[in-house]
Amino acid sequence: MIHLDFSKSSDGLIPAIAQDWRTGEILMQAFINEAAWEKTLATGVATYWSRSRKAFWVKGETSGHLQRIMEILVDCDQDSVVFKVEQVGGAACHEGYRSCYHRRVEDGELRIVGERVFDPANGHGT
Amino acid sequence: MIHLDFSKSSDGLIPAIAQDWRTGEILMQAFINEAAWEKTLATGVATYWSRSRKAFWVKGETSGHLQRIMEILVDCDQDSVVFKVEQVGGAACHEGYRSCYHRRVEDGELRIVGERVFDPANGHGT
Repeated sequence: MIHLDFSKSSDGLIPAIAQDWRTGEILMQAFINEAAWEKTLATGVATYWSRSRKAFWVKGETSGHLQRIMEILVDCDQDSVVFKVEQVGGAACHEGYRSCYHRRVEDGELRIVGERVFDPANGHGT
Repeated sequence: MIHLDFSKSSDGLIPAIAQDWRTGEILMQAFINEAAWEKTLATGVATYWSRSRKAFWVKGETSGHLQRIMEILVDCDQDSVVFKVEQVGGAACHEGYRSCYHRRVEDGELRIVGERVFDPANGHGT
């Protein structure tokens, strides 16, 4: 069991960054607490801690669009991790884009540059 | 000026992820507050907020190993950003590795897999 340092934020959470294991695209970032970290290691499926719901959040649990863990990297301070994942369904973003980071700063505005895999209005969800 | 949502953590900070703009390698993750965000936009150089020093942290300010901003991506909730950077000097990690995420979880242990660009014992620093 690898111990991370959850002590630096007052809420006991550290960032977990999901990156496409094949393309290197950063898909999303969420937070984990110690229990979510343990669940991720034990299940091989990315499990975060939802700050809004104050509950475990198995990404894609309802939609089936899970993130299968292919590799985990830990930073030098052990207070930030990268989940290299296979994103089932192809879209990490609840808006249907492959990545939550689908907008780029351009001339002081946000311009959509990411690829949309599905339209959530058509009944998909994450 | 693009406004981000700094309200979700009690400390008013959001994660900023530095990614090599050419290779896609994730180099490090630190935090920004609103002022660090504004400074990053204004200067074109990655500027974080140091939680330990409670001060601005221009990455590489003393060593010269700055991170030049090539592109900025913003996530769907506007509470997490990716800085695509050119890492001057080649190493983001104060331990001399190209990336702070130079260790991989393997069989319940951390194994070094990242490339070391310099040895900080020889007088370099970040």
